[in-house]
Amino acid sequence: MEKITSIKNSKIKDWVKLRTTHGRKKFGQYLLEGRHPVQEALQASIDYDYIVINEEYAEEDWLTDIDSDKLIVIDDAVTNHLSDTVHSQGIFLIGLIDQNQNTIPKDLDGKWLGLDNVQDPGNIGTMIRTADAAGYAGVVLGAGTADIYNPKILRSMQGSQFHIQIVRTNLLDWIQESKVQHHETYGSLLDQDAIDYQDAIASDDFTVIVGNEGNGMTPEIAQATTKNLYIPIKGQAESLNVAIAAGVLMFTL
Amino acid sequence: MEKITSIKNSKIKDWVKLRTTHGRKKFGQYLLEGRHPVQEALQASIDYDYIVINEEYAEEDWLTDIDSDKLIVIDDAVTNHLSDTVHSQGIFLIGLIDQNQNTIPKDLDGKWLGLDNVQDPGNIGTMIRTADAAGYAGVVLGAGTADIYNPKILRSMQGSQFHIQIVRTNLLDWIQESKVQHHETYGSLLDQDAIDYQDAIASDDFTVIVGNEGNGMTPEIAQATTKNLYIPIKGQAESLNVAIAAGVLMFTL
Repeated sequence: MEKITSIKNSKIKDWVKLRTTHGRKKFGQYLLEGRHPVQEALQASIDYDYIVINEEYAEEDWLTDIDSDKLIVIDDAVTNHLSDTVHSQGIFLIGLIDQNQNTIPKDLDGKWLGLDNVQDPGNIGTMIRTADAAGYAGVVLGAGTADIYNPKILRSMQGSQFHIQIVRTNLLDWIQESKVQHHETYGSLLDQDAIDYQDAIASDDFTVIVGNEGNGMTPEIAQATTKNLYIPIKGQAESLNVAIAAGVLMFTL
Repeated sequence: MEKITSIKNSKIKDWVKLRTTHGRKKFGQYLLEGRHPVQEALQASIDYDYIVINEEYAEEDWLTDIDSDKLIVIDDAVTNHLSDTVHSQGIFLIGLIDQNQNTIPKDLDGKWLGLDNVQDPGNIGTMIRTADAAGYAGVVLGAGTADIYNPKILRSMQGSQFHIQIVRTNLLDWIQESKVQHHETYGSLLDQDAIDYQDAIASDDFTVIVGNEGNGMTPEIAQATTKNLYIPIKGQAESLNVAIAAGVLMFTL
């Protein structure tokens, strides 16, 4: 079991870079932080290089099954350097990015949420967590949507990425494949000419797609879907937050 | 029309303090930022001391009705100093805090959302915006919930505070007054012994209350409500984000 007490250690220097998209692409790894997410990751048997743990917790029971080559102990200074949060527990996992995420499943079973060009990491993470809570099969991340290994997304997903499928692909390809498999696709628009979501009779297998916070769905994608839904706004608010809209749709359809 | 070009100007020094709860309490004012919120505030005829505007926009048409004593022009340096965001438009309003917010309405008409000890400013703002979109009469902010003049809440409300009623009071007093007025109150719990929200027959007038992000509702408040609801979790997620739960409840009840 290696112990690192310097923030100038080459591993630590590399891992700090995993906070950025560029760093994650370069190393093919990501940094997961927090006792609960790390334990969920282990339970889900995901691929990882190291568990990195503050010396205070190094003797805990759940670590006894970890190969000692894969366990690295750090002190408080290194913990604070590595952490993205103010009060870090000092429990990290250096995970391997799933390179198979780009494959559309051959069997599009169940309910899926599609994200078209959604920007805000907090919104993305919350929607993945909500899809999990709503019993959805998975979430499709379309073009322009941030990768799920972004630290803010990891935090707001609260481990839901280990419970449901995550696919990253072009949504037009997804819709095309859905047509072949007779899987319905519903867009969501802020447009009263679309179908009131309460009147939509949803099948057991479908993908419901939400769009960008400011601009809504890409027109080409809205044209390709089986049908498009809208949530009627009753008050004077101009729109709903995208995560709220997705939540209402997922729990109603 | 006064022009301020120094960040050491006493007004600017005071206004920067309006970002903090302490500063807002001391001056009885708040700082609203952004073209859209400021224009909504003027349209709602709210009480304010000044419109503060970057020199680039000082000649715009909508400003011609503003009393020149109430209009202050600032340069880019002062704009950046005053702003809470990275790319500021340089359009601010120095508003007067509504001291009547603590009064429970004599006629509890319509649907209300109650927030019990909700902490996250983004969640609070999003829920007020959602209450507006769902056609709710207002939002009650209970003990422990941040004040709505917090800059992050102001930003995420997107002007909905001008469309619906906002009341700040002890929720036990609110529930007590509701009983007198035969206005129902529904708590929300992560507890399968509560009533499935889909089976709850909601009247036209009620208050639905959501609780703290980590700890849920205060037990005394959950005991005082007419009934308590829960949203069944179908997947492996442990809970829903509070703003999502509130959104699902408001659009379903």
